[in-house]
Amino acid sequence: MRIEMLATGDELVSGVLADTNTTWFGGALFSLGERLARTTVIGDRLDDLVSALRELAARADLVVVSGGLGPTLDDLTVDGVCEAFDLQPVVDSEQLERIRARFHALGRTLTPNNERQARVPDGAEVLGNEYGTATAFALEVGEPHRTRPGTCELWFLPGVPTELQGIVGDRLLPRLRRRIEAEGVHRCAREVRCFGIPESHMDQAVVPLLAAHPHVRYGTRVPFPDAHVRLLAEGSTADEAQQRCDAIERDVRAALGDVVFGGEGETLAGATLAALRQRGWTVCFAESLTGGLASAALAAVPGASDVLLGSSVTYAESLKERWLDVPQDLLERHGAVSEACAVAMAEGALARSGADVAVSLTGFAGPDAGDDAHPRGTVFAAIAGGGGPTSVVRQRFLFGRNDVRRIAAHLALDLLRRRALGLRLPG
Amino acid sequence: MRIEMLATGDELVSGVLADTNTTWFGGALFSLGERLARTTVIGDRLDDLVSALRELAARADLVVVSGGLGPTLDDLTVDGVCEAFDLQPVVDSEQLERIRARFHALGRTLTPNNERQARVPDGAEVLGNEYGTATAFALEVGEPHRTRPGTCELWFLPGVPTELQGIVGDRLLPRLRRRIEAEGVHRCAREVRCFGIPESHMDQAVVPLLAAHPHVRYGTRVPFPDAHVRLLAEGSTADEAQQRCDAIERDVRAALGDVVFGGEGETLAGATLAALRQRGWTVCFAESLTGGLASAALAAVPGASDVLLGSSVTYAESLKERWLDVPQDLLERHGAVSEACAVAMAEGALARSGADVAVSLTGFAGPDAGDDAHPRGTVFAAIAGGGGPTSVVRQRFLFGRNDVRRIAAHLALDLLRRRALGLRLPG
Repeated sequence: MRIEMLATGDELVSGVLADTNTTWFGGALFSLGERLARTTVIGDRLDDLVSALRELAARADLVVVSGGLGPTLDDLTVDGVCEAFDLQPVVDSEQLERIRARFHALGRTLTPNNERQARVPDGAEVLGNEYGTATAFALEVGEPHRTRPGTCELWFLPGVPTELQGIVGDRLLPRLRRRIEAEGVHRCAREVRCFGIPESHMDQAVVPLLAAHPHVRYGTRVPFPDAHVRLLAEGSTADEAQQRCDAIERDVRAALGDVVFGGEGETLAGATLAALRQRGWTVCFAESLTGGLASAALAAVPGASDVLLGSSVTYAESLKERWLDVPQDLLERHGAVSEACAVAMAEGALARSGADVAVSLTGFAGPDAGDDAHPRGTVFAAIAGGGGPTSVVRQRFLFGRNDVRRIAAHLALDLLRRRALGLRLPG
Repeated sequence: MRIEMLATGDELVSGVLADTNTTWFGGALFSLGERLARTTVIGDRLDDLVSALRELAARADLVVVSGGLGPTLDDLTVDGVCEAFDLQPVVDSEQLERIRARFHALGRTLTPNNERQARVPDGAEVLGNEYGTATAFALEVGEPHRTRPGTCELWFLPGVPTELQGIVGDRLLPRLRRRIEAEGVHRCAREVRCFGIPESHMDQAVVPLLAAHPHVRYGTRVPFPDAHVRLLAEGSTADEAQQRCDAIERDVRAALGDVVFGGEGETLAGATLAALRQRGWTVCFAESLTGGLASAALAAVPGASDVLLGSSVTYAESLKERWLDVPQDLLERHGAVSEACAVAMAEGALARSGADVAVSLTGFAGPDAGDDAHPRGTVFAAIAGGGGPTSVVRQRFLFGRNDVRRIAAHLALDLLRRRALGLRLPG
C-alpha cells in the first residue's frame, strides 16, 4: 500500500511552524508495519493544492491531507478537492447542527464563516470531528484520475495536531489494521525506552537477538537524551503476533538491563516519580549548572507534589554556602565543580529539606572551556539518603551548553530511579 | 522564482524526527521576500529519490535538497542525482583532502565509507562544507529535464541543521539576494519580538500603520509564549529599503510599547539578563508551580552567572516555611496560591539570598481544577527589591499544565525586565 501525506498551510512553508503531524503519522504507521512513502507540504494557494491533490490521488493508495478546513477564506481544501476531482461542495446539515451545538456549549454564536466548516464535497464520506469544529471527510477517487490500478482513498483532516491525531487514531488506524488483518497478517508493536546508553551500544545489544526472532522488525529512535528500541512482530493471528512481541521484548529488556526505564509513552521523569512514590520517598534537589531543570522535569509530571519537595538552585557559590552549608574552604580547595562539592550539596539539601533522598548536580556546561581537570561538559551528580551511603557519579558529555544541562537533569532523575529500585549507579 | 525543498531521510518519514530545515528555510526566504512553494519529504529509497528529483527539476527554478550525503550505504543522494540526470559520480580530490584533514584534526582515521563523502556528480559545482564532513554541491539542470523555460538550480546539502543552515546562510542566501538585487529590487527584513500580548491585539495595533508604509509586507509568528512581528520593506536601492524598514519598525515599536523586548534572534531571557546586568543587579527566584523553570530559563543564557544567584524551588508548603520564612498561619489563612504567599516568597528569597531583586511564582498549573477563587491556570508573581516596593501580579492562563508553567516562567522574567528598565508592571 502506497501511503502519502499532504500537509497544507502557509504557516508550514513560511517559517512559522514545523509540521509535526507527519512525524507523528510516520510513527503510527510503523506500529502497523506500514510506511509513509512521501510527504508534500504546500502553502494556502488553490493552484498548488489542486495540482498536488491530482498528483497524489493518481499514484498513492491512501493519502492523509491536513489543514485548510478552517472558517477563513484561505481555508481552501473543500474548493481544491471539488476543482481537482470535478465535484460540487454541499453543506452537510448534520455537521452544521454539530457545529452549532458546539458553539452553543462554548457560549459563542455561529458566524457565517463558521458555516463554511460544514461544507464537504458531494459524495464524500463525512467523518465529523469529536475534537474540534472543522468537519473531516474521506473521499475515494478512481478513474480517470489514476495512473495505477485501483482507487485512492483520501482523508481530509484538520491541521491542529490534537484533532488530526485524534481522528486518525480513532478512525483511520483501526480501519487500516482491519484491512491488513483481512489479508491474514497480524502485527504487534512495542517500544523499549532507555536512558544512558549510546545508540550504537543499544544496536550492538539488540541485533544479535534478532536471529532467534525471525518475524520481528527492529528500529531505533534517539529523541535526546533518550534512546528507544522499536519492535514490530508479525503473525498469522493476533495472539501469535503478540506472543512474538512479548518474546522479543523480554529478550531486549534482558539484554539492555537496567538502562531500560519504560515502554511506549513513558518518560524517565514519570518512571522516576513512580519509583520514588512506590518507596514512599520524598525528594529534594540541589542544582548548580542545571539552574532548576532537574526539579522542573519532575514537576512536569502531573501529581508530582506528593514526592517533590523542591530544589535549592545554588548557581552562585555564595548560595552553596548559605543554603546548602557547603564549607567555604571546601569550595576554595576543590572548586564548585568537584566530587567534594557535589557530595556536600546533596547532603546539605537532604538536611535542609527533610526529604528522604536528595540529588545534587554541579558541572561546567560551557561555553567556557572549563579547566584541565574538569573540561567543558564535566558533570558531578551525588545522591544522599534513601537508605544508602552518599554516592557520586562523574560523567562527561560532549554536547553544547544547553544539551549538557538537559542531559545532566536526566542523570539526576536516573540516579533517583536507580536508588529507589535498588539498582547500581551508572559510570 | 519557484523555490522548492526536498528533504530526504527515513528518520523524517518514520516518526523519528521532524524536519526543521524546511521551517527554517521558509523563514529565511521570507527575509528575502521569496516564498517556499512546496516541500517534499521522502525516505531513503533510490526510486523515490530519482522520481522526486526529476519532478522538482522539471518544474522549479531553485531546489534545496537535504540529506543523503553521509558515509553509509543508505546515503543515496549522489547516486540518485546521477541516475536522474544521466551523470557519472566522481571523487573530488580537493574534498577528499579536506575530509582527510578534518579527520586528522579530530584524531580519527579515514575509513573507505568516509571516502564516499568526497563523491559528487560530474559537472557539479562543489560547495564543500565548513561545518561538517559531507560534501555539499550544486547542479544546474536544463533540457531535456524541464517542463518550463530556463534551468533549475539544485543545491544538495547535509541534513544536519547546523550544516545546512550554515551553508545556506553563507552561500545560497547571499547569491539569491544578489540575483534579486540585479533585478533592481532591494529588500530589508526585521523582527519585533513581544511578550504578553495576544496575536490578535498585536495585529490590531500594527495593521492601521501599514497604510502609511506602502512598500512594506507584514506577518506575525507566535512561537509560544512569544509574539513576533515580521516586517519586510522593499526599495529600489539598499538604502531606501533600509530606511523604509527603519521607519516601519519605529512605528511598530511605538504602537506596541513596552511589550516589545527585542528584535530578530533575541530572547526574553537574554533581554532580561541584559537589563539586569545594565543595572548591576543580582537576582534570585522563589518558585512553586514552575519547579525551577524561571531560574533555568535565565541560566540557559551563556554568561548568566554574574547576575543569577539561584532559586529557592519550594514546591512543598514545608519548604515555603523553612526556606523562605512564609509564616504557617499565612499559608493556613490564604493558601499557597495567593497574593500574600507570592509576596512573602519574594521577600523571603530577597532576604535569604542577598540578591538585589527577587521574583516569586505560585499558582495552579493543573490538571486539577483549582478552586473557585483561584481556578486552574491562576498564577501570582511578586517582585521584591530593585529599589521599588514589593508588587504582585495576578494572571490567568487558559493553557495545559506545562504551558501554564512555561508562560509563568516567562512572566517572572518579564517582571524583572520591566523593573530593571523602569517600566510599569503588566496586568
